[in-house]
Amino acid sequence: MNIKGKTIFFENPPVITGSAGVCGKKEGEGPLAQDFDAIFEDTTMGQQSYELAESAMLHDAIIRAITNAQISPANVDFILSGDLLDQCMGSAFAIKDLEIPSIGLYGACSTMALSLCVGSMLIDGGANCVVAGTSSHFCSSERQFRFPLEYGGQRPPSAQWTVTGAGSAVLSAMGDGIKIKAVSIGTICDLGITDANNMGAAMAPAAEKTIYEFLQDTNTKPSDYDLILTGDLGFTGSQLLYELMETEHGIDLRNQHNDCGLMIYNLEEQDVNSGGSGCGCAGSVLCSHILKRMRKNKLKKVLFTATGALMSPTSSKQGNSIPGIAHAVLLEV
Amino acid sequence: MNIKGKTIFFENPPVITGSAGVCGKKEGEGPLAQDFDAIFEDTTMGQQSYELAESAMLHDAIIRAITNAQISPANVDFILSGDLLDQCMGSAFAIKDLEIPSIGLYGACSTMALSLCVGSMLIDGGANCVVAGTSSHFCSSERQFRFPLEYGGQRPPSAQWTVTGAGSAVLSAMGDGIKIKAVSIGTICDLGITDANNMGAAMAPAAEKTIYEFLQDTNTKPSDYDLILTGDLGFTGSQLLYELMETEHGIDLRNQHNDCGLMIYNLEEQDVNSGGSGCGCAGSVLCSHILKRMRKNKLKKVLFTATGALMSPTSSKQGNSIPGIAHAVLLEV
Repeated sequence: MNIKGKTIFFENPPVITGSAGVCGKKEGEGPLAQDFDAIFEDTTMGQQSYELAESAMLHDAIIRAITNAQISPANVDFILSGDLLDQCMGSAFAIKDLEIPSIGLYGACSTMALSLCVGSMLIDGGANCVVAGTSSHFCSSERQFRFPLEYGGQRPPSAQWTVTGAGSAVLSAMGDGIKIKAVSIGTICDLGITDANNMGAAMAPAAEKTIYEFLQDTNTKPSDYDLILTGDLGFTGSQLLYELMETEHGIDLRNQHNDCGLMIYNLEEQDVNSGGSGCGCAGSVLCSHILKRMRKNKLKKVLFTATGALMSPTSSKQGNSIPGIAHAVLLEV
Repeated sequence: MNIKGKTIFFENPPVITGSAGVCGKKEGEGPLAQDFDAIFEDTTMGQQSYELAESAMLHDAIIRAITNAQISPANVDFILSGDLLDQCMGSAFAIKDLEIPSIGLYGACSTMALSLCVGSMLIDGGANCVVAGTSSHFCSSERQFRFPLEYGGQRPPSAQWTVTGAGSAVLSAMGDGIKIKAVSIGTICDLGITDANNMGAAMAPAAEKTIYEFLQDTNTKPSDYDLILTGDLGFTGSQLLYELMETEHGIDLRNQHNDCGLMIYNLEEQDVNSGGSGCGCAGSVLCSHILKRMRKNKLKKVLFTATGALMSPTSSKQGNSIPGIAHAVLLEV
């Protein structure tokens, strides 16, 4: 790899040879229904807990991605995965029986981008094949970060709806397909947001920083991309991103930008306030809808920038701020 | 990198150009006191919570390691860090103001080895300088995973004492020092242990698997190493590791093996039952005592294998098993 500024360029870009995005019932009723690789009407997945249901969904996405890439788990050098649950329990139980060397990641909702970034660097460094993946589940997240489901707490307009879903992609050193030309690992931004119901505001400054630095490092402008895709800023966070990019850098993102959290639900009809969130939001949308559109040549150059709010139930209760982070992945057909 | 079996060999081995291990009062009363880079008598670190105290300790270790390597944070391509707290809060707050691209890792108590493994692969792949680090704190861990401190719960003989400490190492593509010749990313092992007070038993099979595969891949035997060092198996886990290696593979590890959890405390006098545990155990012992002994040529070839118990408070309460993982790092003078 060659590092210029914060951007890592690859001489032998990794190829996405397989991918899958799966989701739950509510996501399957949204605008992207046709592109998901599986929609699970029963979001318990037949498991005894929502946490194990999330693991089962991630396991399903990983197996589909591996199958899609026409390989077996024995061909995989490393699996890179993480999720929102305490101690990344979702990933641990999803991958524990796969017998693949496992690199646990934590990047909150940025994990799909983080796993693709680190995976790409490992491929560029000499690995043959890695699997990246992540997941989230409305029921496991909600009770961990906010309230018991039965409580039915009111949600402010800036609140987001945690996506029940998972995404996984297989990266290979050889093969045909969408290439990862460059990546950028983000630095943490903390502007002092403490409202766990306004994660868009906590993450927007990180998205601004990573996207702006990527444009600088690559000497490009938004119109050079078919799509600049954030992970789950939602409506509130996306508006803040536009304002920050415009006032700080004089850059208008509106024509090229979209957000997985805005795409996965019909915001007005599905009662999700500011949109979707969770690792599984960017994971399932990227690994199904976006990569499928790229394979059909409907999108040729996509800058995928997933953001994460680095909060924990403990840090929120202690009144700490919510640091944000954003990692970027340049995808090209 | 060249991958043979599960082992990753480096053509241009990364060099450890700086390191620091810091700890709390109790660890500073143990046998390794002279080698720690700092011993904090006040383990609150002047912070308002034990969680932020852990972050402050990790921040201190990172700054010491960077200073020790005679670089500044601006020279660092990536920082790789994780810890035991929910959503890796310890790391997020430790590194959030450093302005270094941040890769969040989750490997439970294996994190020091995981961060060295991934960091080494990134250096071998073209990065110039990375920082690896991890931490744990008795008070933040105890109340998260077990009981409120004030409760004073009884601890069985197999229970371990979470180390209050942090470790950090700077890896560089150039320079003089201890080299990382090879690493191995572990696969998850789950033999069905459900007792959160017997993590040694949950982790020993993972250590056995990773160490045995490393010996096979490198065509070496225990006597080829000055030290085979596990992270925090403690007394119970170390005995199980010996038994497993002997009965499964006919290999006697006793002469070369030691465990950071056995080294950091005087087990009989310090009332720590089976020994030390926590990410900060392996982190602080490796980055101070072990690396200092290697720099003095008292140890020349060390196989560092930190283990992690992939449990969460939620998964334990739900009665799930505790999957284990172990990552290995071959250090040579």
